[in-house]
Amino acid sequence: MSVDSTDAPATPSAADLQALFERLSNWGRWGADDERGALNHLTAEHRRAAATEIVDGVTVSLAHDLPVRPSAENPYPAHHHMLAAGDARDSNGIPGYEATRDYVGAHVHGLGVTHVDALCHMMVAGRMYNGAPASDVRSDGALRNSVMALANGVVGRGVLLDVAAVRGVPYLDGNTAATLADLEAAEAAEGVRVGPGGILLVGTGRDARRAAHGGVLDPAAGMAGLHPECLPFLHERGVAVLGSDGISDPMPGVGVAGWPFPIHQVGITAIGLHLVDNMALGALANECATRSRWSFLFTLAPLRVEGGTGCPVNPVAVL
Amino acid sequence: MSVDSTDAPATPSAADLQALFERLSNWGRWGADDERGALNHLTAEHRRAAATEIVDGVTVSLAHDLPVRPSAENPYPAHHHMLAAGDARDSNGIPGYEATRDYVGAHVHGLGVTHVDALCHMMVAGRMYNGAPASDVRSDGALRNSVMALANGVVGRGVLLDVAAVRGVPYLDGNTAATLADLEAAEAAEGVRVGPGGILLVGTGRDARRAAHGGVLDPAAGMAGLHPECLPFLHERGVAVLGSDGISDPMPGVGVAGWPFPIHQVGITAIGLHLVDNMALGALANECATRSRWSFLFTLAPLRVEGGTGCPVNPVAVL
Amino acid sequence: MSVDSTDAPATPSAADLQALFERLSNWGRWGADDERGALNHLTAEHRRAAATEIVDGVTVSLAHDLPVRPSAENPYPAHHHMLAAGDARDSNGIPGYEATRDYVGAHVHGLGVTHVDALCHMMVAGRMYNGAPASDVRSDGALRNSVMALANGVVGRGVLLDVAAVRGVPYLDGNTAATLADLEAAEAAEGVRVGPGGILLVGTGRDARRAAHGGVLDPAAGMAGLHPECLPFLHERGVAVLGSDGISDPMPGVGVAGWPFPIHQVGITAIGLHLVDNMALGALANECATRSRWSFLFTLAPLRVEGGTGCPVNPVAVL
Amino acid sequence: MSVDSTDAPATPSAADLQALFERLSNWGRWGADDERGALNHLTAEHRRAAATEIVDGVTVSLAHDLPVRPSAENPYPAHHHMLAAGDARDSNGIPGYEATRDYVGAHVHGLGVTHVDALCHMMVAGRMYNGAPASDVRSDGALRNSVMALANGVVGRGVLLDVAAVRGVPYLDGNTAATLADLEAAEAAEGVRVGPGGILLVGTGRDARRAAHGGVLDPAAGMAGLHPECLPFLHERGVAVLGSDGISDPMPGVGVAGWPFPIHQVGITAIGLHLVDNMALGALANECATRSRWSFLFTLAPLRVEGGTGCPVNPVAVL
Repeated sequence: MSVDSTDAPATPSAADLQALFERLSNWGRWGADDERGALNHLTAEHRRAAATEIVDGVTVSLAHDLPVRPSAENPYPAHHHMLAAGDARDSNGIPGYEATRDYVGAHVHGLGVTHVDALCHMMVAGRMYNGAPASDVRSDGALRNSVMALANGVVGRGVLLDVAAVRGVPYLDGNTAATLADLEAAEAAEGVRVGPGGILLVGTGRDARRAAHGGVLDPAAGMAGLHPECLPFLHERGVAVLGSDGISDPMPGVGVAGWPFPIHQVGITAIGLHLVDNMALGALANECATRSRWSFLFTLAPLRVEGGTGCPVNPVAVL
Repeated sequence: MSVDSTDAPATPSAADLQALFERLSNWGRWGADDERGALNHLTAEHRRAAATEIVDGVTVSLAHDLPVRPSAENPYPAHHHMLAAGDARDSNGIPGYEATRDYVGAHVHGLGVTHVDALCHMMVAGRMYNGAPASDVRSDGALRNSVMALANGVVGRGVLLDVAAVRGVPYLDGNTAATLADLEAAEAAEGVRVGPGGILLVGTGRDARRAAHGGVLDPAAGMAGLHPECLPFLHERGVAVLGSDGISDPMPGVGVAGWPFPIHQVGITAIGLHLVDNMALGALANECATRSRWSFLFTLAPLRVEGGTGCPVNPVAVL
Repeated sequence: MSVDSTDAPATPSAADLQALFERLSNWGRWGADDERGALNHLTAEHRRAAATEIVDGVTVSLAHDLPVRPSAENPYPAHHHMLAAGDARDSNGIPGYEATRDYVGAHVHGLGVTHVDALCHMMVAGRMYNGAPASDVRSDGALRNSVMALANGVVGRGVLLDVAAVRGVPYLDGNTAATLADLEAAEAAEGVRVGPGGILLVGTGRDARRAAHGGVLDPAAGMAGLHPECLPFLHERGVAVLGSDGISDPMPGVGVAGWPFPIHQVGITAIGLHLVDNMALGALANECATRSRWSFLFTLAPLRVEGGTGCPVNPVAVL
Repeated sequence: MSVDSTDAPATPSAADLQALFERLSNWGRWGADDERGALNHLTAEHRRAAATEIVDGVTVSLAHDLPVRPSAENPYPAHHHMLAAGDARDSNGIPGYEATRDYVGAHVHGLGVTHVDALCHMMVAGRMYNGAPASDVRSDGALRNSVMALANGVVGRGVLLDVAAVRGVPYLDGNTAATLADLEAAEAAEGVRVGPGGILLVGTGRDARRAAHGGVLDPAAGMAGLHPECLPFLHERGVAVLGSDGISDPMPGVGVAGWPFPIHQVGITAIGLHLVDNMALGALANECATRSRWSFLFTLAPLRVEGGTGCPVNPVAVL
């Protein structure tokens, strides 16, 4: 089954998106102090049920190697600095103790590092999810909506909607916007249904696209994502977390003034949806296709960074 | 049931520990190129079985907040640097895109950060697990036995042996060495059995001890760990990963010349056992005690750091 | 000659300090856009004249080694990370090119790193030097009064007033406040006169004090500095830059509510005085005493950090 | 006066360069423990004499702004992280103390940061200057030939040989190799003579070249430097430090197997010559041309990084 990508839905206007923001807003829904947003959809009951997704006992990493070398996708390389290699295994001063040490660091966001966006990562008109002002994200850390909302990890039922595969292509080119029809077609083709409380992963074939271009992918040449018309789907289905091999928004976006990245702006800020960007979904897609099964136990646990706007992560699917 | 801590086992000699190193060595057991060590004990079958450990659907973080302020436990603070707070949410140059950004980094090892030790973290007489020379850990990264052995995550059955609780004390003081009898008593008291392929977490009450001392804990005053006599237990039971609220070795250690930290030296290097240090086990202990159930699904997924000697992590138990 | 330290001047009130702030304010003096403050006192003519201070052609570093290990004085260690040591001299991929590489970084301020304070480092009642609002120091950098005011370096006539030596003691203990009488006595004893356009370095014997305490100095036990009564002296003499082996303010300070560190608060913010903190003045003091000459060519050049609040530096005296 | 760049000297063979390495070697010249190399040429007498170079009292920075954004010239951006901006000026916990703080860090080497190369930065056949083995540069720092050789700063007579200007061009294109004739022509045209004990700065117009290309310069398109035939000149003249707006070596180099960058390889390792790379020489060239005077007091003082292979610096010329 495939979807004709020429049936692109109409581009919304700024007024449409503003209205969508208001219509899909979960501000206040889980209390004035809530910082978990759509994660509230994911209950203990869902986690119990998700245990049955472990069928084969196979784990698959959904992260890329931490990108320590510069590239168009990651112009601010992460840091892996050895502090004591084998030649300095004696540097600790403890006789007989031969140990190596290192340092790891990274810019949290961007287009290269696999990371989760905390709800404080985005504002619209100076307000974060649940109405907190931008000034609550201080230069010494966020006072609200930080990545600590995920401190106990995200464990639940994950679903991969492999939009590229369902379209019958290795990858979505340029800044293709996957549509609601794409999502529904993928559900139908894969025999799964997303949510409530589910973790939705959308595959656009980014890694296949890079491989098809000699290992180099310049985001300036476009990155595929979801059309803003998918936002009500995310809301209504009670999606708890949204991940993608891109950043969920197409780049460049649909070109609406003031709304460059509606999935981020409406998704994070109105819906309270945590996003996982730059996932490695190729291996998972292969495992799913082999089994004709596109759901699994999904696990993700960011470092506990007080005041953090997100975190590099290594999500793992257990099939 | 309790164990009289005065029944401390004899301190081994250096020759004893050298013999133990050789006796417990897994070098070559899983092939000359193996870099997973005791993780090989943990099979897909174990993961399938571990799914049944999810009973209530409750997740518990086993990590401390990333320690960004200096303390006796963590004299090299981790880094959380905001790159753009709310006041600079416009700093990305994309009209309408209001986003905050930050940087996170940390020394991987030490006594403060919850982290996993890769097998290349330790050498004995210049050799790592499976015999690779210390020179394979270069100043630009480890060529063998890096944290990438854990790239697909660790998911399996975890067991908490709450040695302090079973001894009937809030915490083990000083550099108390928990004994084989402690482990066996805990198994008996809790009604669990460790391994094969299991993840063993040993609770010594470190966080309770800190709390009892006004929130300050100086490692120079000692940290509890396992007596080296526990090493055969770890080996024979097929423990896949060992974690603790300390560093698994008592500090200061048993005082054998050349063998300051036998759990690290024999455990990591001979057995090929990945250690998780400085875990937060108090919340888990409470959840376990409430349920009278000390096993759970354990998940851990380090960042994919090529050549890394370990990684800060946020392990999560699902009960 | 010595000064009786029991003749301590009266502690000013908050109203006194507020009045002093207003009386010594240079806001507007060099134009509404000025970001150089008291550096304006130092003219090309002064630099020409300062050339004659080079008599012996001896250079003396006035900085400590970058403190990469934690201590009470420096709880946030600087970073020196080798990226490629001798074992990885081939890591650049260029045949025959054998090179080592490293990374250097530091927190700019604090009580350990020798550093210069930019004028944007301090605010009083939400305003920086020359009236700019605190909000001009954004989380992505300072818009005004950054360290770039020093981009072309500071070269001029330096004078060391070795207050400890003139008092006849190896060091000023606790949080001793050097007084106006101390400064004037030092000028008389040394036969020098400070300013206009001069760089004033005040020696309190901090390094001697540390040495006398086994190499350990806990700032909680006090650090010597200048009594706020010295502020008019700094202003009237046209001091261009003030440095000290401490931070110029005593710690803890004189205990006036809202004015914990008047030299910083009035000096930087009202006068527009750049401070150099944590200097190493012992070697210079020896060189000066040997020659009975306490003036020299002073050089300091921070890295050009756009938006920076200061910079680690290595000032050099040429005698 | 101009030099015909088509009169390029012959490319040396590997045997030629090996012979040159041996002929110009200063190993042992200043003792078996010497770590200062050609800096030994610069004596107190030279510094005294250099004071007379201060004529106008004008200071000129010879560094670029620390490059915190990625570019082809600097793919590993430096770090300037605000730790407390104006919005968190109260984050220190001291009532009334309103202060901002930041962090600065950088990769020391590369093609963007203005930095000095320590003698331990380079090896030839596994040996550093004065014969120390590569293994003396450990993963926890260099044991010999570190940047600490410059701890007391470099102050002396600087000379700018503006090769591009003397050739009558705004910049040397591609990987042009400036020749001995270029250096001698520049001396003649400018009426200066380099050394002994002098600091030689060679201008190739790199910044003008970047400006002519819209502010972008890709090192892959070549960078100008010195032909290896200039090495005997540097040696015989007793040059103490060599700086350039490039890296002194042309890139790509002359294409001799095993000798990609002879100025680095023979200059640093055999001669013991500290190099200053990526200097900003445009403003200095203008000041010199205005005065028809190409000598000045040169000052440079790296941070005191124990074990460091170099340091970002802001050298300052005083005219």
